Amino acid sequence: MLEIERKFLVKNNSYKTEAVSKKRIVQGFLNTHPERTVRVRIKGEQAFLTVKGKSNAAGTIRLEWESEITVQDAEALLALCEDGQIDKVRYEIPVKDHIFEVDEFFGNNKGLTLAEVELKEENEPFEKPDWLGDEVTGEVQYYNSQLTKKPFTLWK
Amino acid sequence: MLEIERKFLVKNNSYKTEAVSKKRIVQGFLNTHPERTVRVRIKGEQAFLTVKGKSNAAGTIRLEWESEITVQDAEALLALCEDGQIDKVRYEIPVKDHIFEVDEFFGNNKGLTLAEVELKEENEPFEKPDWLGDEVTGEVQYYNSQLTKKPFTLWK
Repeated sequence: MLEIERKFLVKNNSYKTEAVSKKRIVQGFLNTHPERTVRVRIKGEQAFLTVKGKSNAAGTIRLEWESEITVQDAEALLALCEDGQIDKVRYEIPVKDHIFEVDEFFGNNKGLTLAEVELKEENEPFEKPDWLGDEVTGEVQYYNSQLTKKPFTLWK
Repeated sequence: MLEIERKFLVKNNSYKTEAVSKKRIVQGFLNTHPERTVRVRIKGEQAFLTVKGKSNAAGTIRLEWESEITVQDAEALLALCEDGQIDKVRYEIPVKDHIFEVDEFFGNNKGLTLAEVELKEENEPFEKPDWLGDEVTGEVQYYNSQLTKKPFTLWK
């Protein structure tokens, strides 16, 4: 139940040519508190309910619990969520031994693209592709839960 | 996914002699907002994650989604919950065609006992046993989610 991951900005679109999958994600939050976010996600033809706890100081490790639910249930639960749905397309890009998940955001977060890589250990080394930008691991404003309340197009 | 129920105070302990089951319930909330409560419950040897939406004006009907989870997962999720766990014993009491659930609270809510009856329709008639007290359906302070924040022993 521990999720270890690092998050980065993305410099350009070249990741798209290397993607092995592409799925639309629509998600909302039943709670956006960083210590107990509760997310309802529809990803392609699947849906999930996910609870995440507070991260460690570095922002790399977070308790995560996830359960698959029906798309029908997810739609009913999305209607209960706080305002500010996230709409994004997720690309999966294999880079050596790891899979990067790159999220291109739409709607109120258009212009933002974020890459995440999941690790088995906090200090596990991984290859950084050319399109990978600055690291933003642990920066709360980049949490999807916070992007619902303060979307990227309203930054600055 | 619609839950129709009515809630009452309980006048005395005589319901206990008619109970057909008795189980301890420990529960916490990942969100206590009445429009989207998220509850983690351990009930006897089972555990559940439950989302409830806003009720109708009368307080009788509320959207409810529930999924059974493992007790181990529930324990991990309880650790993420807001302060103020609910600790109670639930008795099930058959009264004619209905089952009343009577919750005797402990901890910060000691002294409070509530009875609920689930109905198939909002105006469905049901037999009221002698021990049933005043109706408190829709009174938000009696929601378990609110009892975590403002427990019964601190009322008045």
